[in-house]
Amino acid sequence: MSTVNRLALIGCGLMGGSFARALRVACPALQVAAYSRSLASAQRAQVLGIADEVFSTAAAAVRGADLVLLAVPVTATEPTLRDMRAGLSADALVMDVGSTKRDVVAAARAALGTAVGQFLPAHPIAGKESGGIEQAEADLYQERRCILTPLPENPEGLVARAVAAWEAVGCSVVRMSAEQHDETFAAVSHLPHLLAFAYVNGVASQNAAARHLALAGPGFRDFSRIAAGTSAIWRDIFSANRDEVLAQLGQFESALTAMRAALQSGDDAAVARLVDAASAVRARWTLNGAPMPEDDPA
Amino acid sequence: MSTVNRLALIGCGLMGGSFARALRVACPALQVAAYSRSLASAQRAQVLGIADEVFSTAAAAVRGADLVLLAVPVTATEPTLRDMRAGLSADALVMDVGSTKRDVVAAARAALGTAVGQFLPAHPIAGKESGGIEQAEADLYQERRCILTPLPENPEGLVARAVAAWEAVGCSVVRMSAEQHDETFAAVSHLPHLLAFAYVNGVASQNAAARHLALAGPGFRDFSRIAAGTSAIWRDIFSANRDEVLAQLGQFESALTAMRAALQSGDDAAVARLVDAASAVRARWTLNGAPMPEDDPA
Repeated sequence: MSTVNRLALIGCGLMGGSFARALRVACPALQVAAYSRSLASAQRAQVLGIADEVFSTAAAAVRGADLVLLAVPVTATEPTLRDMRAGLSADALVMDVGSTKRDVVAAARAALGTAVGQFLPAHPIAGKESGGIEQAEADLYQERRCILTPLPENPEGLVARAVAAWEAVGCSVVRMSAEQHDETFAAVSHLPHLLAFAYVNGVASQNAAARHLALAGPGFRDFSRIAAGTSAIWRDIFSANRDEVLAQLGQFESALTAMRAALQSGDDAAVARLVDAASAVRARWTLNGAPMPEDDPA
Repeated sequence: MSTVNRLALIGCGLMGGSFARALRVACPALQVAAYSRSLASAQRAQVLGIADEVFSTAAAAVRGADLVLLAVPVTATEPTLRDMRAGLSADALVMDVGSTKRDVVAAARAALGTAVGQFLPAHPIAGKESGGIEQAEADLYQERRCILTPLPENPEGLVARAVAAWEAVGCSVVRMSAEQHDETFAAVSHLPHLLAFAYVNGVASQNAAARHLALAGPGFRDFSRIAAGTSAIWRDIFSANRDEVLAQLGQFESALTAMRAALQSGDDAAVARLVDAASAVRARWTLNGAPMPEDDPA
């Protein structure tokens, strides 16, 4: 890979801190400049050896950096990019780590204008139950996928630098459009969260909720685990990806309608067919077990 | 506990085999008579040391037994009880292990008539991913809950023997009505399965299904795990507990409607409130972490 000389870490939490730690391992001469809306987090990053210098503005932090990693909540993308623009070198590569991509692209266009070609949207599929700079670790991205959704304005050389950076921290890179990204993550992440939140609310609102919850077993545990997610994250994701989440909800409701119709009419053979169809798909599936399809419909 | 002298194991699979293994540990002098519709399974139980004798009819197997464990698919409850009735001792306690209880009670009334007071419906909350007599193990029921739904016809002495038997194999016993049982398991087990089956079918039916599944992560893995269940089990459970499952589906749909309305109208504050409500319930919940409520609404 082309070595990164100076990383500007904008936002000092789990995702950014882990990226900086991992990139230090790959590029031993790396200098890391940190900025965080919370000065304490940036200072903590320095104490932990994640950052070399702390700056009080994003523009100051990005000055002279060849790589800028924006690791802030997606709703902070536009103002943060605006703040940093004055300090940005013309050859700097800027990437984010957000869970949605169409809204991030729109924010980047609004904030960077003609400089938007320097911005390459990224979504590394990694995380931990608890966030914060204290949790940052160099192997967070090892053997994970990172999705890049390049813009038409991105020079291929810039995309190659982005791929090299994510590979350096341990990811395998997948390229697709922002639309494909948002559709897929609505399907496999955002909708399941929505359903899990609604399911738990449906159980908890009943008179017998205490009995139900006392007797719930391992099936409930796994099915509802993601309902422990917080609104600090999920309000913004649902809002940013609303159209795709609603479209996926429509897909789910069609499948649920078929299931209910079979059940209500006492058509056990139809119930069995629907169960078997789902079971065959799920029993075959394993985490990171399938290659990306070559012929990928948009 | 009052010792069990002779156990008749009717149905030789994971649940029954594990019960026999565990009861042998608790009652070293126990004799186990086995019957299975599949003679090979009963013979295998004998080879594995789970059963002492194998019989070719249920009536012969239950002769002289003070405890009969019916561990067959719930749809086989009525014919199997009918078959065994001629051999049943007047002081024998008969229990099942089925996942639904109202249909089992109806089957027992139909099959046993005036002898139904000997039948005590049971549902031990235990299992493994793979079934069969080969998988049977003595500790399957350790630290699990077993739900008993006694009939008005059950003498209290019989209920006490049932409690003692389940405690002997490691369970803590919870008593409730068959209606409460079926409502609760519709809420915490059957509905989540139905939703997971529908969800996977909804994802798999899309043009971009291969991309979605290739990129699905740990959230998808846990949320959809129960969709790998087979129709051999779930067709019967959904059929047996149809009314309660449909009622729980109604509860879910009310909660989902609230979620969708907030999302569609762009009311981020309402979305956040609904997410926080679910998250607070789920973050507090742990497996077997809540006591059964004292004041339990029917």
